[in-house]
Amino acid sequence: MVKVGIVGGTGYTGVELLRLLAQHPQVRLHAITSRKEAGLPVADLYPNLRGRVDLSFTTPDDASLTDCDVVFFATPHGVAMAQTPELLAAGVRVIDLAADFRLKDTEVFQKWYGMPHSCPEILAEAVYGLPEVNREKIKTARVVGLPGCYPTSVQLGYAPLFAGGRKLVDPLHLIADAKSGASGAGRKAETSLILAESYDNFKAYGVAGHRHQPEIKQGLEAIAGYDIGLTFVPHLLPTIRGIHSTLYATILPEARDTDFQALFEQYFANEPFVDVLPAGTMPETRWVRASNYVRVAVHRPGGGDTLVILVVEDNLVKGASGQGVQCMNLMFGLPEDTGLTHIPVMP
Amino acid sequence: MVKVGIVGGTGYTGVELLRLLAQHPQVRLHAITSRKEAGLPVADLYPNLRGRVDLSFTTPDDASLTDCDVVFFATPHGVAMAQTPELLAAGVRVIDLAADFRLKDTEVFQKWYGMPHSCPEILAEAVYGLPEVNREKIKTARVVGLPGCYPTSVQLGYAPLFAGGRKLVDPLHLIADAKSGASGAGRKAETSLILAESYDNFKAYGVAGHRHQPEIKQGLEAIAGYDIGLTFVPHLLPTIRGIHSTLYATILPEARDTDFQALFEQYFANEPFVDVLPAGTMPETRWVRASNYVRVAVHRPGGGDTLVILVVEDNLVKGASGQGVQCMNLMFGLPEDTGLTHIPVMP
Amino acid sequence: MVKVGIVGGTGYTGVELLRLLAQHPQVRLHAITSRKEAGLPVADLYPNLRGRVDLSFTTPDDASLTDCDVVFFATPHGVAMAQTPELLAAGVRVIDLAADFRLKDTEVFQKWYGMPHSCPEILAEAVYGLPEVNREKIKTARVVGLPGCYPTSVQLGYAPLFAGGRKLVDPLHLIADAKSGASGAGRKAETSLILAESYDNFKAYGVAGHRHQPEIKQGLEAIAGYDIGLTFVPHLLPTIRGIHSTLYATILPEARDTDFQALFEQYFANEPFVDVLPAGTMPETRWVRASNYVRVAVHRPGGGDTLVILVVEDNLVKGASGQGVQCMNLMFGLPEDTGLTHIPVMP
Amino acid sequence: MVKVGIVGGTGYTGVELLRLLAQHPQVRLHAITSRKEAGLPVADLYPNLRGRVDLSFTTPDDASLTDCDVVFFATPHGVAMAQTPELLAAGVRVIDLAADFRLKDTEVFQKWYGMPHSCPEILAEAVYGLPEVNREKIKTARVVGLPGCYPTSVQLGYAPLFAGGRKLVDPLHLIADAKSGASGAGRKAETSLILAESYDNFKAYGVAGHRHQPEIKQGLEAIAGYDIGLTFVPHLLPTIRGIHSTLYATILPEARDTDFQALFEQYFANEPFVDVLPAGTMPETRWVRASNYVRVAVHRPGGGDTLVILVVEDNLVKGASGQGVQCMNLMFGLPEDTGLTHIPVMP
Repeated sequence: MVKVGIVGGTGYTGVELLRLLAQHPQVRLHAITSRKEAGLPVADLYPNLRGRVDLSFTTPDDASLTDCDVVFFATPHGVAMAQTPELLAAGVRVIDLAADFRLKDTEVFQKWYGMPHSCPEILAEAVYGLPEVNREKIKTARVVGLPGCYPTSVQLGYAPLFAGGRKLVDPLHLIADAKSGASGAGRKAETSLILAESYDNFKAYGVAGHRHQPEIKQGLEAIAGYDIGLTFVPHLLPTIRGIHSTLYATILPEARDTDFQALFEQYFANEPFVDVLPAGTMPETRWVRASNYVRVAVHRPGGGDTLVILVVEDNLVKGASGQGVQCMNLMFGLPEDTGLTHIPVMP
Repeated sequence: MVKVGIVGGTGYTGVELLRLLAQHPQVRLHAITSRKEAGLPVADLYPNLRGRVDLSFTTPDDASLTDCDVVFFATPHGVAMAQTPELLAAGVRVIDLAADFRLKDTEVFQKWYGMPHSCPEILAEAVYGLPEVNREKIKTARVVGLPGCYPTSVQLGYAPLFAGGRKLVDPLHLIADAKSGASGAGRKAETSLILAESYDNFKAYGVAGHRHQPEIKQGLEAIAGYDIGLTFVPHLLPTIRGIHSTLYATILPEARDTDFQALFEQYFANEPFVDVLPAGTMPETRWVRASNYVRVAVHRPGGGDTLVILVVEDNLVKGASGQGVQCMNLMFGLPEDTGLTHIPVMP
Repeated sequence: MVKVGIVGGTGYTGVELLRLLAQHPQVRLHAITSRKEAGLPVADLYPNLRGRVDLSFTTPDDASLTDCDVVFFATPHGVAMAQTPELLAAGVRVIDLAADFRLKDTEVFQKWYGMPHSCPEILAEAVYGLPEVNREKIKTARVVGLPGCYPTSVQLGYAPLFAGGRKLVDPLHLIADAKSGASGAGRKAETSLILAESYDNFKAYGVAGHRHQPEIKQGLEAIAGYDIGLTFVPHLLPTIRGIHSTLYATILPEARDTDFQALFEQYFANEPFVDVLPAGTMPETRWVRASNYVRVAVHRPGGGDTLVILVVEDNLVKGASGQGVQCMNLMFGLPEDTGLTHIPVMP
Repeated sequence: MVKVGIVGGTGYTGVELLRLLAQHPQVRLHAITSRKEAGLPVADLYPNLRGRVDLSFTTPDDASLTDCDVVFFATPHGVAMAQTPELLAAGVRVIDLAADFRLKDTEVFQKWYGMPHSCPEILAEAVYGLPEVNREKIKTARVVGLPGCYPTSVQLGYAPLFAGGRKLVDPLHLIADAKSGASGAGRKAETSLILAESYDNFKAYGVAGHRHQPEIKQGLEAIAGYDIGLTFVPHLLPTIRGIHSTLYATILPEARDTDFQALFEQYFANEPFVDVLPAGTMPETRWVRASNYVRVAVHRPGGGDTLVILVVEDNLVKGASGQGVQCMNLMFGLPEDTGLTHIPVMP
């Protein structure tokens, strides 16, 4: 049994971790911390857990996190990097759902997250937790920085085009038009997020620049081995969960005979959670609702030189907590899909 | 032209007042105040008003509210009663969208709103702004306290049963099961109101007791002339606008031959905004969306002794700002439906 | 392993059965029939099942349903009663999700479902599949008629008041104001159900009379042992799943000292799927989303003589397919919660 | 007063025409036809019109459409072209909300709409009803073919870049990622449109090819005077109304110094219904809800060579019926905004 601690479990990635871990056959939940809600039974905040999770929130000080095998950080940016050194020293492995261990360049990190990085040496060893790309490194990682929700879908959608340094599309004019449900913004008391402001409505945001753009760029460049230029425009859907990324790329003249469907099917052939759909399919976010699956479809409208890739994921599962559990399984030698075989809820 | 001021126009009843008044042919918008947003063009906060409302928010001090013919208060409870004496002294009439002039009993007011009433003598002269019940008094009122959103629908639905002291149903066991869209909670940054918490969801609230219960009771007792007992249970709909009240009453043995359909049709025969639907109709909230209409249907399932009355209204129009304009029209001798003839938006 | 067949799996109760049974550790899915979709892989119609359910729909003729241990009917009313005699003759047990085996009085059945009952003798032996009331009978039943979605919530909410013939509330003026998500209407191509007609909207329906009223009445009378009078008004929520029943009852003078909270807690003390909430709680439909739980809260506003009981359930799980699996577990001697321990999905 | 007839008013563009025309000060509604609903009062189908529109549907034969000044066709594709010759012969002008008079090339029409064009000579004289582009021609047109909902938003968003043959962006790799509310699919009984299938969900559709692509291409080529290549991907939003088009273009090296904000502001400077937003704005579909406004924002993320243009419109107003009324106003010499000054409904 893996002994698990969660720091900061009051947000959506926290409760989703709890939902998954409480049903995981090889996990023992040991502690969950929240300075603000210390003393409150977890199930009082999230009544879906009534009768299933008996833990109460504890203060970080009371929680014996150092007794755990692994600690998940479901906290605001900056918390994980402050506490990770001590945990590592105690032999505890760390999985961060925030951004502390995503961006390898500390200047880029500081630019987008507004704070200096406090432990660049740990950042250097941290592994980016995208199993489809970094599976082997994750297995032995002491620290895993989980990808953002958008970056997971965008990188998986573009990865087959760049894997192994392939040159199939214009790498400098990628366009990722992404749409996310409101849970991606977190459990925050913000006027713009209330139902009366966001229901029956749709808008783009972060058009001038979004933190996930440099992360995606870094990830794709690591896959490709060359420079990537990406325009990333996120939009807010009036739904709870679900990301739909519509990815565009211009096929290079020399690559026009490529069988992109076959390319994608081969690339993901052995992946337990990435489902390449039959040609012509247009996936829906509900096809992966509340599950760890990602479904991908490849289109080439009119047989022209524009490739359109459609990717759907549940931002709280494969885009966050489910991916965290997937990484944990790899880190502890468990079958990769343990506790992650929930069938999507549809309708 | 009626010269109008609005105090506290940053909330939903404020913007809805602006939408209605900016299209009202007999109104000149003179000032709109907000201490917090002073200096901000109104259309920056509510871009639907771009090109249509040129006003900026001003501080209450700068705004020459005393130059107005009438001032609307779209403020938290307690603000109107603080400022009304000065306005009345200057000859300005007042229409309050909050609760300051609804409850006649100052002890009841204090119990439910947590503050003493600061001007009971003005409260005593204030008229409850439900035109279908108090039309003549509203015409000459100096101060109008507009009904709450739920109370408008519940009182209109029950009124024909009690008007003139009629005794048709058990007056002590009325049950009003009411459902409201989320705009009824206002434009507030509260976690429970964000889309990820309230979408694809439904719940009751205020079951132990809700401020609108004593208001409805007071209103129905004024209509009936005798004691009323009411259980009122509000629910939160995952919609923006719209109230649907399902009202239950037990028909008294001696009233079983009553033609309730005819009773309702007669009672509302000359009302410009109350539409008694044909027998058997089940109204939908969208039938009145963004309009000042209320639609009412009377049912008697199985011909038994339970009466079921269905009422739909738009909580921001007939349940608040539209009703305010309707009262203003009456107060200034304008045709009652001036500026209020918007056809509901459907679909 | 229980060998399971499903007749008519193209609707929502069908796909939900598949979701639950495909994750059930003691079930082998043997056949699923649909005359219309014969030949189509189930996962083509419901892509959430891709990679998890390999079955294709077969024609009822091809399907060797008689090889099964149990057959679920997720069909329109009338299908199960036509095929059940042959299945019983072959030793196959039957669980019907439609109404064929709910109403014991064949005249009442014919009145509400517009067809004569074709096998009254099987109806006579059929057990009403509400485990909390009929657990022992279900264990040995050859035929189980599952309750409707609304009746499950309403009967569970009222049951403690009437169990054992208790006389605590006026039994002739019960009022059940119920609200259901749109999946309750099924996967039907009807104009009134399309999103543009039903989103951002709310309405009552079936006010003059609804099929679930006689079913609830029959169920409560079986529990109470005396006559029940019930007004039942269903409403359509703009949500996918979820039923919220707001139940009203007038407390009898002699029962005013009853501790209703304790009564409910004791009645459901050993139930694996009914959660009596702490006093004062107002449950939300999402608290049981995609799970077999029912959560119940008891209120007595102002300490008066009106009892208000709030019940939430997922109409497709505890209101249909989950309850079917629960009954199947009982029928085959499995732990009652096998394959039903999904934690509600929230947010 | 303009005497107006409507053919086929049972769909959403029909009811929206009625909502607008019933409030239009210079219009007399003369007839509305529907073979299927003949005899039915319009307000029975659309209760939002109760008390405001007294007309009943008539059969096309009974309706004296030839008495009208103008007839709107809110019909399936193919109906308008069948009836237009007779109406023109009687001196009646025609505005078609369907596609019969949009595509100038009859072969392209036949390819995408599956029927031959029955009156190419009328098609040749028909004017494409986009006032911002064709204002003068519309004034004298006998037949106006209104643009599709998506094409209105996409053409207005790209128009300033191509007007007068300007060469500012790569014209062959335009990408229009568009999202529409469900009312765009019409009032159709289709399973995929029901709320339980489309709520809390998002998907692309028509990726392989959509009828609006050739229409947009034709329109932009008419504006530019040279060839245009466009990838158009529509998506289905879980909202009722609203289109949000996110338009991408690669700025040509020689145009990198262009002030695109100024370009857009100048191009639309005198337009009554196109609002160019301040730099940096991200418009929301609700900002134009139930109104004829279009709001446009121009972005250049990171100052790079990709231009991102955001356009919001109400698909039923500026995308259909409102644009029809705008054209009618032009055709009959009325101020262009007559009857179209509704302020967007927000929230």
